[in-house]
Amino acid sequence: MYLPSWLSQLYRGLSRPIRRTTQPIWGSLSRSLVLSSQRRNPEFSSFVVRTNTCGELRSSHLGQEVTLCGWIQYRRQNTFLVLRDFHGLVQVIIPQDESAASVRKILCEAPMESVVQVSGTVISRPAGQENPKMPTGEIEIKVKTAELLNACKKLPFEIKDFMKKTEALRLQYRYLDLRSFQMQYNLRLRSQMVMKMRDYLCNLHGFVDIETPTLFKRTPGGAKEFLVPSREPGKFYSLPQSPQQFKQLLMVGGLDRYFQVARCYRDEGSRPDRQPEFTQIIDISDVFRNTEIRFLQDALSKPHGTVKAICIPEGAKYLKRKDIESIRKFSADHFDQEILPVFLNTNRNWNSPVANFIMESKRPELIRLMETQEEDVVLLTAGEHNKACSLLGKLRLECADLLETRGVVLRDPTLFSFLWVVDFPLFLPKEENPRELESAHHPFTAPHPSDIHLLYTEPKKVRSQHYDLVLNGNEIGGGSIRIHNAELQRYILATLLKEDVKLLSHILQALDYGAPPHGGIALGLDRLICLVTGSPSIRDVIAFPKSFRGHDLMSNTPDSIPPEELKPYHIQVSWPTDSKAAKAH
Amino acid sequence: MYLPSWLSQLYRGLSRPIRRTTQPIWGSLSRSLVLSSQRRNPEFSSFVVRTNTCGELRSSHLGQEVTLCGWIQYRRQNTFLVLRDFHGLVQVIIPQDESAASVRKILCEAPMESVVQVSGTVISRPAGQENPKMPTGEIEIKVKTAELLNACKKLPFEIKDFMKKTEALRLQYRYLDLRSFQMQYNLRLRSQMVMKMRDYLCNLHGFVDIETPTLFKRTPGGAKEFLVPSREPGKFYSLPQSPQQFKQLLMVGGLDRYFQVARCYRDEGSRPDRQPEFTQIIDISDVFRNTEIRFLQDALSKPHGTVKAICIPEGAKYLKRKDIESIRKFSADHFDQEILPVFLNTNRNWNSPVANFIMESKRPELIRLMETQEEDVVLLTAGEHNKACSLLGKLRLECADLLETRGVVLRDPTLFSFLWVVDFPLFLPKEENPRELESAHHPFTAPHPSDIHLLYTEPKKVRSQHYDLVLNGNEIGGGSIRIHNAELQRYILATLLKEDVKLLSHILQALDYGAPPHGGIALGLDRLICLVTGSPSIRDVIAFPKSFRGHDLMSNTPDSIPPEELKPYHIQVSWPTDSKAAKAH
Repeated sequence: MYLPSWLSQLYRGLSRPIRRTTQPIWGSLSRSLVLSSQRRNPEFSSFVVRTNTCGELRSSHLGQEVTLCGWIQYRRQNTFLVLRDFHGLVQVIIPQDESAASVRKILCEAPMESVVQVSGTVISRPAGQENPKMPTGEIEIKVKTAELLNACKKLPFEIKDFMKKTEALRLQYRYLDLRSFQMQYNLRLRSQMVMKMRDYLCNLHGFVDIETPTLFKRTPGGAKEFLVPSREPGKFYSLPQSPQQFKQLLMVGGLDRYFQVARCYRDEGSRPDRQPEFTQIIDISDVFRNTEIRFLQDALSKPHGTVKAICIPEGAKYLKRKDIESIRKFSADHFDQEILPVFLNTNRNWNSPVANFIMESKRPELIRLMETQEEDVVLLTAGEHNKACSLLGKLRLECADLLETRGVVLRDPTLFSFLWVVDFPLFLPKEENPRELESAHHPFTAPHPSDIHLLYTEPKKVRSQHYDLVLNGNEIGGGSIRIHNAELQRYILATLLKEDVKLLSHILQALDYGAPPHGGIALGLDRLICLVTGSPSIRDVIAFPKSFRGHDLMSNTPDSIPPEELKPYHIQVSWPTDSKAAKAH
Repeated sequence: MYLPSWLSQLYRGLSRPIRRTTQPIWGSLSRSLVLSSQRRNPEFSSFVVRTNTCGELRSSHLGQEVTLCGWIQYRRQNTFLVLRDFHGLVQVIIPQDESAASVRKILCEAPMESVVQVSGTVISRPAGQENPKMPTGEIEIKVKTAELLNACKKLPFEIKDFMKKTEALRLQYRYLDLRSFQMQYNLRLRSQMVMKMRDYLCNLHGFVDIETPTLFKRTPGGAKEFLVPSREPGKFYSLPQSPQQFKQLLMVGGLDRYFQVARCYRDEGSRPDRQPEFTQIIDISDVFRNTEIRFLQDALSKPHGTVKAICIPEGAKYLKRKDIESIRKFSADHFDQEILPVFLNTNRNWNSPVANFIMESKRPELIRLMETQEEDVVLLTAGEHNKACSLLGKLRLECADLLETRGVVLRDPTLFSFLWVVDFPLFLPKEENPRELESAHHPFTAPHPSDIHLLYTEPKKVRSQHYDLVLNGNEIGGGSIRIHNAELQRYILATLLKEDVKLLSHILQALDYGAPPHGGIALGLDRLICLVTGSPSIRDVIAFPKSFRGHDLMSNTPDSIPPEELKPYHIQVSWPTDSKAAKAH
């Protein structure tokens, strides 16, 4: 359980992430890039014509002859312009004397966002004209020569103003959107974070980076996998959702300490994204074991019945009567559950004899169990265990949102709070047939060592060695200790899950040949970088993302293919209308 | 042109690669792993039960209590066994006293290649029983406790003996083949080399690692690309052969210094692997400009006619008459070319008046031009330029092989010789219609700056800014400076190459929006690691390779898919027999 410390180690070397900056400051990018490499500064200007980057010049460079390359960000009255590269901004003075007419012409006539190369001297800005908000604000460049490297045509939108553009326009002109401060920051921070992870794994802990194939065999029932037709009639590869099987085979092959920054393919066009849901509740069933209150009594009399509650700290101060009403309505509409709000200050239990009764009779026990205080509100529900938990988990987030709109600071957006979720059940009843079992995660997850005996008597009670890692309420990774014993794996697959063992024979065989005990974890890199940079969408941390429908709007992908180009793959398109016509025929 | 120094820098941190070791020594692996990280030793035993790896124990560990995990490599007379992990081998003494009966039972009964965990004390081997060939040969482990973690069934082949197995058997049981010393060495060295490359690019030179999509639009005429059907009828993605377009778009997007360890997909089932061919020849046409020798005269009278020769140093000493005959036959059969062997020592020009005549009349010029010496042989040919060059290039390699079989050391297998190939032509005549042009590499390569004017007059003479990197005669990488000017790109695509510009409109548009001048290089990682490790096949440096027919023999991939699972992708298989039946119908 070392990963939170691992991630926090990772952060130490990185700059403080920013969250939804409305006024991006180029300087913070350049500072973070210098900070991140600790022992040495990367040479950003090796192998190229430029002597320096635009963003790195300071008073210490005064008098130096420099050559810079960049985009024209801004120009004022043909007297100066601001040049931009990935490292920052610098002010360039356009020479006014007659002898520099050709240089002046180039710099005054080049359209915005054209690429230019300038050479000149680093000089001080005149007294009073320094710009303390700009990291290069103490200096400017007195230009001697200039060259227009590439002129820019009229842009579909201004680079500095991109945030107000629609998502579709940004995706269509992705290569322009990438010039924005925020995208440069996100992608460069991502690169640094991945490099830190690699450094940690390879250099500190002797892990070995191994690429596994992405053209592989279809997973049984892998409905979300992309297919790739081969040149053999009727034979297909599949793009695997994860290097799952390979990870295990590498362990059998003695490649101890394997890792990979892997590409995973999930064709989720037809399924909404899984939303992680986490609940933290307190079970107060025992308090009401002998209650006279009808709906609580009803719930507790059923097999999985329970009485659960959450406490909203200072809820009495911030929640209004209409809030409570909307919470009750939401619970009834979406969960078919009754919610009983209990104010510890009994005067506020508006017209609710039940709540008053509870406070009178059960007050000491409730206060002890839930550690409540005078201004808190308790939301109490009763019913089937899973349903009650889901409802209260949802209400907890709703109430937090509500309190935050009333000005209460509950969740510090600059804090990174990590959480492990453990002790998942190994099996769940199948939705379509609750008497049969299915794996809660996947059939290779090992049972909890203390529960192995239950596999043969009460498999539903077996906990798994699966673990999820949560950052600020978002699942960022998960993994498990795997089954290394072929007999146990066969028993779970064939006897408990009734799976066709033949499809996985290569895995079972591999386990028979001296597989070591093993386990691992996978992080969702896109989501993690999203949380670290405070980006609203994973599309902001991926260079060329697909739209939510899986399209690339820049190049119009996926696209049609002429039938003759499908021939080598022995496939043809089944057009929906064609198939109807065929039926009618 | 900094890459050779870049690669040689890379090597400094790595251990000396080995070439086809017949007697692998586990110690060299462990030494190399420690060497490679320079500043710090990776902690191979962090986060796990073992206290040490099998391969790292030395006399300095004497007296330490250790816990080791590994596979049973060897056992003798129930007195000791040799335990193996990825780091090396260590000798473990099986306790003989009655009180340790259970430990003895575990260690004596576990089959070979079972996984065990042992705890005990590091002790000296008795005097005279040290094994100097084994890095851990001064010590052994006196075991106190042992646990069988997983028993191994009868293996299809012995791990230590794997090199004699067939390629097919090795691929079928890849997870066992991976336990071999050579595969462990190759994959771990690969991981280290890639890490060094990343360290160099990111930390030393400020490059940014960006992942580009692998599901993208089909390249016009990209016959070697894999197709991926989408869930929209008739629409397909393609797995790109390289991140070519994305690289350029990232440059337009200001992501200066981009790199990626990219997955490239090339469906080469129907095409043999491109074989790189390099020639080094000397043109001696001028020597023979006024020759009387018929076949030389004929050749020189034609438009691209030339007389070329190579010198085989000390050829007269090692080449026999039958060698020369087979060279002449090879040239006639495969290239339809005449070869004239000229021995500088005129006595040996067996029955060849032409050769004798050449030596008499042209001797001083030949010796000057070709810097030949007394024992050398000159192989001379005449004909069309490309054909003559290809033949002599081939003969040069053939003769080198021949001389090496005669014991001459020409190519030191431990040397890494790098070479840049430059000044490629930008265009070549189309094979099917030599009046039309096609790109020698791809249409985005920039012309040589000195030749730009020729684009409008004699495009065939334009050199490109393409460059290839060659290591020991093998092409390991290539790249080019790209066209950043949209007008020039449009002229080359539309006017010179007669391509449909519409298909590349997003690239042309991107160049119009202030694309900076840019270029790059791509290394073929598989081939590079192959050369460094001296592996006979790239399958030896890939964890899970496909067979030469693109099959995965371990899992039987590609595989059939039931028709109903093709429905969501709106495709159906066109069976070769079905289509015939349809026609008959």
